[in-house]
Parts: sequence; C-alpha cells; structure tokens
Amino acid sequence: MPGNSFGQMFKVTTFGESHGEALGVVIDGIPGNLLVSLDDLRKELKRRAPGQHKVHTGRKEEDEPEILSGVFEGKTLGTPITVIVRNTNQKSQDYDKLKDQYRPGHADKTTAQKYGVRDHRGGGRASARETLARVIAGYFASLMLPTLSIYAYVEQVGPHKLSSPPQDHSVERGEINIPDKELTKTVITFLDECKKNGESAGGIVGLSILNCPVGLGEPVFDKLKADLAKAMLSIPACVGFSVGEGFGFADKLGSEVSENAQFFGGIEGGISNGSPINLKLAFKAPSTVGEKAREGRHDPCVLPRVIPVVEAMAKIVIADHFLRQAAYASFLLSDTNR
Amino acid sequence: MPGNSFGQMFKVTTFGESHGEALGVVIDGIPGNLLVSLDDLRKELKRRAPGQHKVHTGRKEEDEPEILSGVFEGKTLGTPITVIVRNTNQKSQDYDKLKDQYRPGHADKTTAQKYGVRDHRGGGRASARETLARVIAGYFASLMLPTLSIYAYVEQVGPHKLSSPPQDHSVERGEINIPDKELTKTVITFLDECKKNGESAGGIVGLSILNCPVGLGEPVFDKLKADLAKAMLSIPACVGFSVGEGFGFADKLGSEVSENAQFFGGIEGGISNGSPINLKLAFKAPSTVGEKAREGRHDPCVLPRVIPVVEAMAKIVIADHFLRQAAYASFLLSDTNR
Amino acid sequence: MPGNSFGQMFKVTTFGESHGEALGVVIDGIPGNLLVSLDDLRKELKRRAPGQHKVHTGRKEEDEPEILSGVFEGKTLGTPITVIVRNTNQKSQDYDKLKDQYRPGHADKTTAQKYGVRDHRGGGRASARETLARVIAGYFASLMLPTLSIYAYVEQVGPHKLSSPPQDHSVERGEINIPDKELTKTVITFLDECKKNGESAGGIVGLSILNCPVGLGEPVFDKLKADLAKAMLSIPACVGFSVGEGFGFADKLGSEVSENAQFFGGIEGGISNGSPINLKLAFKAPSTVGEKAREGRHDPCVLPRVIPVVEAMAKIVIADHFLRQAAYASFLLSDTNR
Amino acid sequence: MPGNSFGQMFKVTTFGESHGEALGVVIDGIPGNLLVSLDDLRKELKRRAPGQHKVHTGRKEEDEPEILSGVFEGKTLGTPITVIVRNTNQKSQDYDKLKDQYRPGHADKTTAQKYGVRDHRGGGRASARETLARVIAGYFASLMLPTLSIYAYVEQVGPHKLSSPPQDHSVERGEINIPDKELTKTVITFLDECKKNGESAGGIVGLSILNCPVGLGEPVFDKLKADLAKAMLSIPACVGFSVGEGFGFADKLGSEVSENAQFFGGIEGGISNGSPINLKLAFKAPSTVGEKAREGRHDPCVLPRVIPVVEAMAKIVIADHFLRQAAYASFLLSDTNR
Repeated sequence: MPGNSFGQMFKVTTFGESHGEALGVVIDGIPGNLLVSLDDLRKELKRRAPGQHKVHTGRKEEDEPEILSGVFEGKTLGTPITVIVRNTNQKSQDYDKLKDQYRPGHADKTTAQKYGVRDHRGGGRASARETLARVIAGYFASLMLPTLSIYAYVEQVGPHKLSSPPQDHSVERGEINIPDKELTKTVITFLDECKKNGESAGGIVGLSILNCPVGLGEPVFDKLKADLAKAMLSIPACVGFSVGEGFGFADKLGSEVSENAQFFGGIEGGISNGSPINLKLAFKAPSTVGEKAREGRHDPCVLPRVIPVVEAMAKIVIADHFLRQAAYASFLLSDTNR
Repeated sequence: MPGNSFGQMFKVTTFGESHGEALGVVIDGIPGNLLVSLDDLRKELKRRAPGQHKVHTGRKEEDEPEILSGVFEGKTLGTPITVIVRNTNQKSQDYDKLKDQYRPGHADKTTAQKYGVRDHRGGGRASARETLARVIAGYFASLMLPTLSIYAYVEQVGPHKLSSPPQDHSVERGEINIPDKELTKTVITFLDECKKNGESAGGIVGLSILNCPVGLGEPVFDKLKADLAKAMLSIPACVGFSVGEGFGFADKLGSEVSENAQFFGGIEGGISNGSPINLKLAFKAPSTVGEKAREGRHDPCVLPRVIPVVEAMAKIVIADHFLRQAAYASFLLSDTNR
Repeated sequence: MPGNSFGQMFKVTTFGESHGEALGVVIDGIPGNLLVSLDDLRKELKRRAPGQHKVHTGRKEEDEPEILSGVFEGKTLGTPITVIVRNTNQKSQDYDKLKDQYRPGHADKTTAQKYGVRDHRGGGRASARETLARVIAGYFASLMLPTLSIYAYVEQVGPHKLSSPPQDHSVERGEINIPDKELTKTVITFLDECKKNGESAGGIVGLSILNCPVGLGEPVFDKLKADLAKAMLSIPACVGFSVGEGFGFADKLGSEVSENAQFFGGIEGGISNGSPINLKLAFKAPSTVGEKAREGRHDPCVLPRVIPVVEAMAKIVIADHFLRQAAYASFLLSDTNR
Repeated sequence: MPGNSFGQMFKVTTFGESHGEALGVVIDGIPGNLLVSLDDLRKELKRRAPGQHKVHTGRKEEDEPEILSGVFEGKTLGTPITVIVRNTNQKSQDYDKLKDQYRPGHADKTTAQKYGVRDHRGGGRASARETLARVIAGYFASLMLPTLSIYAYVEQVGPHKLSSPPQDHSVERGEINIPDKELTKTVITFLDECKKNGESAGGIVGLSILNCPVGLGEPVFDKLKADLAKAMLSIPACVGFSVGEGFGFADKLGSEVSENAQFFGGIEGGISNGSPINLKLAFKAPSTVGEKAREGRHDPCVLPRVIPVVEAMAKIVIADHFLRQAAYASFLLSDTNR
C-alpha cells in the first residue's frame, strides 16, 4: 500500500489525515545551501487556503508550517526536509454522524474496503487538505530552479470560459485565479448562486511552463508528459490531462499540426526541448450537493484553490527530472573517456 | 536516465532501438505456474503488426517472439521472463540521408541533445516499434487476471466519430479497430485519401475496463487514475487522457454528476470500486507529411494499430496494482493479530 | 541524494538532524487495523536511551514519541504513520567550537564535502541519535508479525567474549544486553575503566531470528541475506556482517558444513526456509578518545545501546519481505488459472 | 517477487535460468558516447569462465556475448544496453534424476516453495552461472569511471592464507587469483586433493578500491558500506562482509583505531572520502560433496572464479552512486541561487 511518495531524485513523501494531528511532508534529495524563506513558504500556503473569497469554504484554516528538519540557519542542509502543519481547526465531531455511512461520490467506501478500517472523521488522505503538503514541497522544488516559471490559471468554470489564454506569466489572476476581470466577476456570481442552491461546478485549468531546461524526461516510460500526467491525475477531482492541443488534436490533420509548432509545445519524444509547455487539466464538480452543500464548510468548486497545487506538482516533476538528467551532465560536457 | 521500467511488483523493462538487433522486454515479478501459450502471444503481436490493411505501413514486419527465460515446459517459473523479437526487416540504409538532419516533430533532436549521441538509423526508442515489447508484457499480465476484461477501440479519426460507444466487449471491432461497420468504411476511405495526399490524421481511443478487482490504487500519488494516466501518456503520440466524462465534466454541475454513477466510473478517491472504468485517450496526427508521407512505409494514422498497445498498458497497470494490494490480503481476511 | 528510505512495501523514511527540532519517521505500507500501544513503543525507545547504566552517556534524553498520523482510536489506518521525537536536550552550544574544525573519524568532513554545507551543531544525520527513528519503525513492523521472534545480544566487548551463545530467546540480557551475569560485570568494569582513561571499545553483536516465515527473500539481488546485510551496515559504526558461521566458514570443508544444518541457518539460495537465522555484526570503537572522551556525553562503547536498533532493522527487513512475498500468496494457494 | 534489479541510476536487471535458453542483462541508465570493446567484454567473461585450470569444473562454457541493444557503431547510445549469452552446453538431461528430489544445501527446496513450481533442470537463478550477467554489467560500469581501480584477490582457501595483502593493484594474481606464487601452488594441490576426495572448500576474498570519487554514499540507509554489503551478499555462497578491519575491529580499542587511518579505510559516515576502501568477503564451501562431487562438473571451491564477480559488483555500486551524487554537482559548484 505504499503510494505516498513521488519522484526518484527529488523524492516527496506526504502524510497525515485531514482530521488527524498534523499533515506534513518529507522531501529527500534536495541540494544543500539553498536559501529558505519561511515567509515565502507561508505565502504559497496562503494561496491554497480557504477564506480568501466568500465562495471558499467557511473553514478558517490557520496553516502555520513548522520546519522540523533539513534547514539550518536559513539554508537547506541536503538532509531530508520535514515540514508539518497542525490541524487546529478540524471539527471532527461534525463527522460523527458519518460513523456508519459512506458519503456517495467520496472515497469513503473504497478506502474502507481497501484498508479494512474506517476513519469516519473526514476524508482522511482523500481530502483536498492533503494537498497543502504538496504546496510545501513545490515551494522547496522552486528553490532549485530559479529561472523556471510556472503559471496556472482557471480557464473555465461550469459554462463560463476564458476567450483566450493569458499572454504571459505577468497577467494578474485575481481573487479566484482567473486572468480576466470580467470573467472573474461572472464566475463569482455563478459560484455564489451554486452555493445558494446546494450546487457545485467543475472546470478546466490551464498550465504554462516557461524556461524548462532542455533534455528532461526519460524514455520510454518516464517521459516528461507521462510524469506530468501522473502528477496531475494524483490531485483529487482531476479527471483529465492534455498536452498542447490535447483532445483538440483529434480532428487536426498532420499538415495543420506539423506546420505549427505551438501545437506540440515543448515536449518531443517525451523530452523537453526548451520551448513553452502548455497543459490543460479537467476537474469535476465536488460530489457534495443539496442541503449539505449549503452549509458553510463546502467549496462549490475546487478550481480557484487548486491552482497552487497544480503549480506545485509541476515544480516537483521538473525538479525531479532536472536532477535525473543532471546526473549525466559531466558525460555530456567532456570527451575525456570516449 | 533510467526510465525504461514500469511497475513496482509487476515490473516491466523494455529495451531495443527500432533499427538495432532486437527489441524485447524483461518482466520481473510474475507469479509461477501460469500457463503460457506462444500462439496466443503471437496473436497479440499480430494485432499491432502493420500490413493488416492497406492503410497500414507497407513494411512487412515478421515479429516472431523468442522466449529466453522465465518459462519452462509451458509454465511461468516466477523468475524474470525475457522475450525478444529480432529486427529482420528494418532498412536502416533508408535512413542514411538522415545522418545529418533532424526530422521536425520527431524526437530526433531532443534525443541527441539528451544523450549527446545521434542514432540516425531511425526513431530509436521513440519509434512506435518499441510498443511491441509492451504488447508482450500485456499478454503476460493478462495471464494473472483471467476474469479481467479490457477492451479498447477507435472512437474518432480526424472528423469522423462514433455516434455512441460500443455496448459491451463482444462488439466486433473490424480491421481498423472501429466497432462500427459504416464508420470503418468511412475512415478507410478517409485514410486512403490522406495517404494519397501526403496527409496524416489524429483521433481518439476509448478504453473500457470490466471486472477490475476492488481496492486497487494507492493514495495519494499512485492512485489508479494517476498510474493509468502515466501508462497511457508514455505511449508515443498520446497527448490526452481522461477518466469518465473527462473534459466533458468541465461544464457539468455537481447535481448532474453525482446523480449519475456512470460519470464517475469505477474509481473513487483513486481506488477501484469494481464498477466499469472508462477512459479516453487523444492521439495526434503523425508528424511526417508531404512527399515523404506518400512513400509506402509511413502510417497516415496511429489509431488502428495503437489499440493493442493501449490494452497492454492497462493490463500492466492493473496487474501491478493487483499485486500491490494482494500483499495485504491476509490482514484484511483475518482478525488474529488485532 | 535521497537515501533516507528503506524497504519497498514496508517503506520507512527517517528524518531529522541530531541537534535539529525533531527526529522522526514515516512508515508507508503498514496494514490497517493493527493495535498500537504507545506504552509498548515507549518501552522500545527506552531500551536504546542512554542513562540506564553509568557507562552510558550522561546525556539524559527524554524521548517522548508523538504520533502525528496513521493511527486512530488505537489502531493503524493503513495510511502513513508518522512519529516524531523532539530534541529537547541537545546542547548545541557545546558544539560551537566545532564550527571550523572537523572531528577525525566522524562523518563531519565527508558530509560537508558531499552536501556543500556544514552543520556544526553535531553529527547531523550521522549521529547515532538517528537510530531512534529506526526503533520506532521496528516497533510498528513487529505488529505485523506477532509470532516472529527477534533477539539480539552483546557477544563481545573488547577482549571479553561470551563462552557460548544464549540457548534461547528467554535468556535475560541484563543492563548492558549481555546474556550472562558474570560477563556483564566484567564488561561494566572494563567500560568504566575505558571511560576513565578516555578510551573506547568495539565488539560483536549476535542476532537470532526465530519463526521467520518460509519463502522470504527475492533472488537474485534482494536475497534475504543481502537485505539484512544492507540493513545492518546502514547502522553507524557497523563494520561487519555475517550469516551462520560467517568468516568461520572460510576454513570449513564442505563435508563439515553440509552435514551440519546449523552452519547454514535459515537461508538457502537467499530465501528463508523457516529454520533459525543467526547473524553476527561487528562494531568498531567510537572515534572520540582522549580528553574529550572523558567528558560525560560520550559512550565508550556503542554495543549495549545498539541492540534494539539491530532488532528493529531485522524486523523492518522481514516485514518488508513478508509483504513482498504475500502479494503472491493467492497464486500459490489456488490452481484456478493454471 | 521482483528482485532481479540492482541500482537506482545505473540500473542492472539480470535474467535467465542456468539451463534455459540464455542468460543476460539489461543496463538502464548508462551515459551515451562511451566506447565499447567487445574484445574487452569477452576478456572479462573469460576471467569467470571455468576450465582455466583443472581445479575448475570440467564444463566447457563458450560464453559468447551478443549485444542486442544500446550500442551503435561501437558507442553507447544512452538507451538500455542488453547483452545475452546463449546456454549452449548445459546438459539438462543430467538433471532429470533430480526431478523428484531436492539437493541438500542448494536453493532447490526454498525456490520451489517460494514460486510454487519446480525447475529441476538445474540451479535456475540460484546457479553461479547467473553471475556472468553481473560481469557483463560490471564491464559497462567500468567504462564510466576510467580512473577507478578495483582489485579483488583470493586471500584464503580452507586453512591456507596469504601472509600479507598485496602491495598494490599491479601484483599478478596467477591462475587461481591468488597474488602469491607459493600459495597458488599450495592451494592448487589442496583443491586437487579436495576434488579427488569429493570434498569442497571455502575461503576469504580481499577487495581493494582505489580512486573512488569523494562524496559517494547516501545517508542514512544507502551508505556506501551498506550498498557494498548488499551487493556482495547477493553473490551465491557469500556469507560474510566486512569493511576495513571488520570483525578484527571487535577487540581494538578506540585509541588504536583512531590513530591509524588504515583501519577506517575510505568510508566515513557511510560516505567515500577518496582514501582506499578495503573489504573482506567470506564464502562457504560448495554443498555438493561425496561421490557426486568427484564428477567433472563441480568446482571444489568458488573462490578462484568469484573474483571477477566481486569486482563487477563493486563497479556497479560505485557507478550507481557516482551518478546519484553527480546529479548535485552543479549545486556544489555554483553559488548563483544561494
């Protein structure tokens, strides 16, 4: 059953149930001597925290990270970094009524069947709360690659879509991570309406990666697109992944595609070529609807808060593949033993 | 750079360049005592071989598998199974003119940058020919799970789509793996036209999994959907993956989704629940177009031949996760030490 | 640099520097529903704690374990178990004088060279203090295998040796883990003398494993003897490992060996056969000698305190291999698909 | 049951039963552009082949390596290298009488119990013949590290020992790999006598590693000494491993040890420091004794032929750890992002 680690060289292990003592992460394989800023880390965590806008769950989570290991005098040591966040505000008593029932559309039943034991306090490892550990790991991954630029945004919520993708990574994304002011207003109104009606909504996230080093991705199974797909599909509620035009490629002819580099994006043969990488991710609407969904604690839509999680997973994948390829750098540079 | 293995308990390692001596696979972690039929294996390989229809590449590959290890007197030994297929018909001289150029849209340039060396004979590991090793591994995976049923089919080629998915796994798929006779004719005509015009086409594959055991998938990173996504995106030309309604979920409201079990399919919280699992995969059109594409050796579309590869990858993922979960079976059954 | 995980199915990741905030462990892959006793865990930790006898370091460590995840209402959940121990009593100011020097025979210099950064507070990850995380993991491993019996003991310290191995696992080991009262006294006197003289001593540990399940160990690289060797050599100061007669086999003839099952012990071809497994481990004397060694904080010998660590590593190896083999149990029991 | 791979970055997978079609190895993770000499590879294989001296088994193995992948125009491609050796001379009919019996002291019974199936043709994966795949992998590992020098030798056979270790790697090792002419003669006479009497002998191997790069070994579990121990104990008949003085450390005092650098050797805190690394390995006498051992095909002692296998495993471990550490080289060199 071990499945809580990701990456081979930049190896991330997350732990903690949504209503347990704490959530956290161990990062094994980070270089030494990188400057760590607790403030920057807090900012990242705040980006995925609820309560920034009223469409977000009413739970007020004070997610204060505590670094237990791997950092000394503001620098990484090269040893495993462990960061935990205490669960201070999880009202598990709310869930007591769930003791003997499984919530439909949640992981409750499959989890109980798999492990032979029931944690009725809440979503356990299937809860979106687990993703804060990923955001922490993503922060540390970004320390390794100062020129890499990763930018995710909400492209669609329910029927409401961006008319065109943002032009670059400097476009302001607003309070619910949509890079367009008009659409932001429309979606907020839409989600307020959803909330009022006990309804929920799905959508699409766009992800743009700039300055990815050349040569990342390991044929034939650990292609960059394959590991990015796994990373994204491991996020709760993610149900679709595509690279470049994705499903839009289906009815494109070869002449249309091969003349136009933008369709491919920055991955050829599973290996990065230095060009921009564009991905799209589909998320389904939360399963909690009806009376229960009108209560304060449920988000009507995961899209706004999932943005830093998507970015974190991309950073982790690229940091891992960077190290995997860097191991061979000396052989690419020299001609001494050939 | 190691990236040629897939799976943790059912561990598949493929090797071989498209124009080298041989391609092959080592399967480590298969149980002993399973009955092996070389005829059945040959049939699987034939399903992905070119030359079944004239829209397929003119290359006549005689892919004769040779079992080098792991099978004795028609049964698996539990030791690593190795199967190779000699490359008897690869005209690498055709490629000599490529010695000093990179084919656009192929992996030629990124591969050379990554490894610091150029194999101008052909696509090397990026060639679709590598996938025959996956089909071999998929055959052996299927021996472990006799009741599992995996069925893939071509759902769309260029602008031509199935009007509805096949009703069950007994629907005949025809010579280009489309489960509809009319559409088969239309697509053959379309691809013949493509070939004549030096054009190529993309499309969509549907995949249905029945009788998947309950409890497969390891939170939080090795969710079943995550490992299936990685498996599929590791196939050449695959550019999109979705589970259930996938990108179609984007504009569905929670009430529509949660009332209708078919939207979810058989994975909840990343863990199989025994219900059918439905996936869709997008493939882009081959990059070779124009004069070169009119020559005999190039398929105008990968979809018809990719079907057994998609099925093989699904079998490998499920065999691997079956063993990962089976390790805990005795703890789920007994109450002795609790 | 990731190297802080051990095991494939029962996967242990330790973290924490000797003078950082906390040490701890994440255990991923433990079955659900196992009964956890915090008292039993404390007892195990106490066995490796200093201060039980005056030959032990004067440091008084109050190693109170805190379970952060994976346990609910006294039972394992099947999710990752995380346990931390705060470093409350590490006087890192003592080490400030080490800021600009490397202690000979310690890992100080190689660590700094490897990671490019110096943690002058203490031994960091190379400190024996890290082993408490292993003892915690060993406790949880033992929950899985209630009939397994693991028994380690001090066989030799400096020139003083046991005349014969203990007859079974019920023999009392005394305050410094020697299963002989007379030898215990002799060694305590010897170590008191060592301490007074700023001297240190090495020795040999014996390890007996009873009721190991049959069939554990994976040829050809993950043989049971190979993984046990790795586990033991990963312990600080361990410099030798042998199975059965070990180096004593060197001058034994085949006829002597093959007539006498006890020489082999319970591993054949790298696979357990259910018979007792006997190992010996050599440990070198601590490098700190002279004036500094006379100070309170240094043990003159690691042997007495390493016993629970050796046992914990054996438990972890066997729990891991138990799960690896258990994955195939259903194929060994049934004949359905053969 | 997967256990046939070793290494994380330089990843070696071996396959093949002693009496199957072929043995072989896949090496995944080797850099591109390394010059390959088939002649050098043949020379390495010949070093472990029987028949060099009459004390060796009468079997004449013509072990001709065939490279199936990963090498093109005499250079590595960076893709997986696969080399096979056909089993041309295995008389499995000799073994038919073993169909219903298990040879004592062999892996026959544990193997059958583990996998639920019996391969009565011979030792299968437990046979020493498997080690030729390791020698092949060791050859390729050595291409990566041209300045590394690895030198193993027979130090003891039965009661006959070297009086002092060889002074350096230039000392001639003779026909049975003993770096002393007198002892060579004595041991040959001793082994001839053993053979005549249906007797067998064990012994000790010394291994010296020079020019190991600094910084190899990953705390806390993948210490260099730990991975070397695992590598060596994975060799058939290996029953003991020690680093530096090993079991000789047991009765050394700290002052003796710390004043004398040679005791430690080149590993501190599990990390290489550039100094020579000295190891000792114990091997037990073959289990086949009596009438059967007088027949031509059984070696009375594994020591002479195991030397290139021991060297190969050391090369593989160091190549793997070299790549693992090299991944971080750019962070050690630059100060840009700190």
